[in-house]
Amino acid sequence: MVFSRQILKPSSKDEGVYKALSEIFGEEDVSKSELDRISYSRDSWSKTSLWLRDGEIRYPPDYIVWAKDVQQISRLLRFAQEKKIPVIPYGGGSGVCGGTLPIKGGIILDLKKMDKILSLDDKSLTVTAEVGIIGERLERELNRKGYTLGHHPQSIYCSTLGGWLAARSAGQLSTKYGKIEDMVLSMQVVLPDGDILETKTTPKSATGPDFTQTFVGSEGTLGVITKATLRVSPYPELRAFSGFMFGELALGLETIRKILRRGVRPASVRLYDPLDTFVFKLTGEKKESKGRRILKMAKDKVEDLIFLKPQMVNKLASLVKGRCLLIFMFEGDREIIETEKRVSDNICRVEGGEDLGEKMGIRWWETRFDVAYNLSKVFKSGAFADTIEVAGTWDKLFNLYEEVKSAVSPYAFIMAHFSHAYKEGCSVYFSFLSRGKDKEESEELFSKIWELALSACAKAGGTISHHHG
Amino acid sequence: MVFSRQILKPSSKDEGVYKALSEIFGEEDVSKSELDRISYSRDSWSKTSLWLRDGEIRYPPDYIVWAKDVQQISRLLRFAQEKKIPVIPYGGGSGVCGGTLPIKGGIILDLKKMDKILSLDDKSLTVTAEVGIIGERLERELNRKGYTLGHHPQSIYCSTLGGWLAARSAGQLSTKYGKIEDMVLSMQVVLPDGDILETKTTPKSATGPDFTQTFVGSEGTLGVITKATLRVSPYPELRAFSGFMFGELALGLETIRKILRRGVRPASVRLYDPLDTFVFKLTGEKKESKGRRILKMAKDKVEDLIFLKPQMVNKLASLVKGRCLLIFMFEGDREIIETEKRVSDNICRVEGGEDLGEKMGIRWWETRFDVAYNLSKVFKSGAFADTIEVAGTWDKLFNLYEEVKSAVSPYAFIMAHFSHAYKEGCSVYFSFLSRGKDKEESEELFSKIWELALSACAKAGGTISHHHG
Repeated sequence: MVFSRQILKPSSKDEGVYKALSEIFGEEDVSKSELDRISYSRDSWSKTSLWLRDGEIRYPPDYIVWAKDVQQISRLLRFAQEKKIPVIPYGGGSGVCGGTLPIKGGIILDLKKMDKILSLDDKSLTVTAEVGIIGERLERELNRKGYTLGHHPQSIYCSTLGGWLAARSAGQLSTKYGKIEDMVLSMQVVLPDGDILETKTTPKSATGPDFTQTFVGSEGTLGVITKATLRVSPYPELRAFSGFMFGELALGLETIRKILRRGVRPASVRLYDPLDTFVFKLTGEKKESKGRRILKMAKDKVEDLIFLKPQMVNKLASLVKGRCLLIFMFEGDREIIETEKRVSDNICRVEGGEDLGEKMGIRWWETRFDVAYNLSKVFKSGAFADTIEVAGTWDKLFNLYEEVKSAVSPYAFIMAHFSHAYKEGCSVYFSFLSRGKDKEESEELFSKIWELALSACAKAGGTISHHHG
Repeated sequence: MVFSRQILKPSSKDEGVYKALSEIFGEEDVSKSELDRISYSRDSWSKTSLWLRDGEIRYPPDYIVWAKDVQQISRLLRFAQEKKIPVIPYGGGSGVCGGTLPIKGGIILDLKKMDKILSLDDKSLTVTAEVGIIGERLERELNRKGYTLGHHPQSIYCSTLGGWLAARSAGQLSTKYGKIEDMVLSMQVVLPDGDILETKTTPKSATGPDFTQTFVGSEGTLGVITKATLRVSPYPELRAFSGFMFGELALGLETIRKILRRGVRPASVRLYDPLDTFVFKLTGEKKESKGRRILKMAKDKVEDLIFLKPQMVNKLASLVKGRCLLIFMFEGDREIIETEKRVSDNICRVEGGEDLGEKMGIRWWETRFDVAYNLSKVFKSGAFADTIEVAGTWDKLFNLYEEVKSAVSPYAFIMAHFSHAYKEGCSVYFSFLSRGKDKEESEELFSKIWELALSACAKAGGTISHHHG
């Protein structure tokens, strides 16, 4: 993407701001350059990819600062509050909902220089780290020392601990380890007035409300999270996979539910709907990522149909009585895992699943980070794609899935899988692909699909976001 | 206890208040009678037992109302906020920290008439109930239908669901099922201005901060909790017990820690320090409750020493190199529980525990509700007793135990057990017994012991309450 030079208006005329920021952070850690302002005008929200494709810079920040310690952040917030300048904490920029967009300009506070692992406590199994650390580095360092955080979001290579906390992130192993809010024990947060709050690291407490949980998921609106202590686990002794094919989706869902109510804790459970199963299987056979595969299907074979008559394609796909793939990954202590896997596999067989052995699970495990980095090609083709991840309790889940799918069907090619399963319910992860006639129609269509999907979800009793924030 | 009639000043002169309350609740559910005002002037805080023993009524409320539905509560709070009258939500009155004392008078809002189980969802394993239900009734109704909440606080016969939520209660099986804050999925709360807030029942969500966790533990200060939806589990297929004797306390603690980091989830783990082990063993042999036994020891044998020279008794007790009892209870699916118990038992043996079989665990299980209802005799003897339940991460735990014990030792006979164990740490439950020369000295001593204990705990890095609130 090439931009003509000087496409942005200069940052706020108030030279005092730049000077004040330089005093706090040092000149090398303050920028008002056009390149930086363009870079930080977006995150990984699909809509910002559409803008970028079309050379649009809608929401540039005025300044970017890179913090090195909590005192700098405290001074920044005190200054910004006094001057009424918005401050937007920024981690990896991997958020997919536009949460970091500087819609009123202001200062982007990049936290990636605060990336130290401060302590690792083997006895209590806790790690304390600054929030700017990239997830993969945190996990790798833990692995080297014999531990795992158990948090593997698809964005792990480009998202930060702070982003996880700010948005209530979920990793692929959330069924065993929980979401980030279940892992965090305490945090350091800089409040809007510059005060520094530290919650306490305790196993459990009854000394009032849990304010850690007030800041987890607050997306930078209540303060800037700067440091956190989280539970870790010993690196698993054993990792084991299962795969089963079910005749219909509802049966697969019932099977997951029955396994979890028995007290089995797989690390990961994934059930693909017929279309997603079809794509998953193709992907593996051709050694291509799922994103590229969907795109190719669209480009090579059924382009007009998918983009012009998505409802018909969705309908055709639903008529093919496709089967549904259910895969499991277990990890942890050998003796316990072997028992839990045996109980789980037996339930799958009793419920009518065809045992596929471990290969489908292993394939998922090995290709699980491929998708995210290939989707940009979809955008270059003129189309757009996105994912919607909602959740509901088991009593509402199947209906929720059908309602969202049928709301979106007229406007996009849509498929889904169920992952992040818990005793009381599960998340549904929809992927959709569509295209408008031109960029205005594309953007309108994009917003319409989201609105229809989330309204249908809320009406069906679900939550409109399980982990994207 | 006999009080001379008319010992209280009449309730607030403002007849308008009584009339307004009667309009909201109906006259039968409003009281300003002396008897009711005396009854509601206290909860189960030990200090209020001292007052009661001495015929003192320090904090009578002006009115008591019994709510039947959420709309009444909404109207009450709107009225009370306008008139600036304190409102104190009241459940079973089983709180042991004086949290419900009407220290500024006002209106006690008794919630025990709101005691319905509203729904039970077998698919999602959730129960929705009004908060006035007594814990034991809730658990019994669930058991009848094939479920368990898994929440068994010692107060289960006299505490309510609302009290559990307001104070962040823990049950005896918290190692498996978590504390009440881990079980609750959503709540209905009436805010101080009368607005009714409902959080959503979802498995997990990323739509902002978790406000349920803001109200859990808020002890009535942020609103009145009126309804809650909680996770339940299928009634356990198997319940299994283990007991081991360890040569020293630190070794027992290390053993618990090692078992939990392997991923084993006992329902309950209890490790008694040498003195508590001694008392536990005596209790069983004589078929007497622990409270009565401590009292008898004090009365019959070493009364002067315990009360006049507690430090010497504590010291003597610590010199006797007593052994420490560690007991486990496992419950759930047979196949999984058998594996977890086998792993756990093996670790105990490897760490040098002497296998006592299941009898000690069963004895605890069968007598576990005895203590609470006998302690009042201690008070009649002129002495006082109380419990302090703190918690800390494993790295700090043993030191925390020693610091609290040594801070209290000069002033009270003190012993402890460790229960509510988690992967990252554990709670320490201290029991102490002491007596002042007269009632003034007793009360002073009581406060001093608490202050010393909690300061020592905080200094050692622990939380000053694990579940009493």
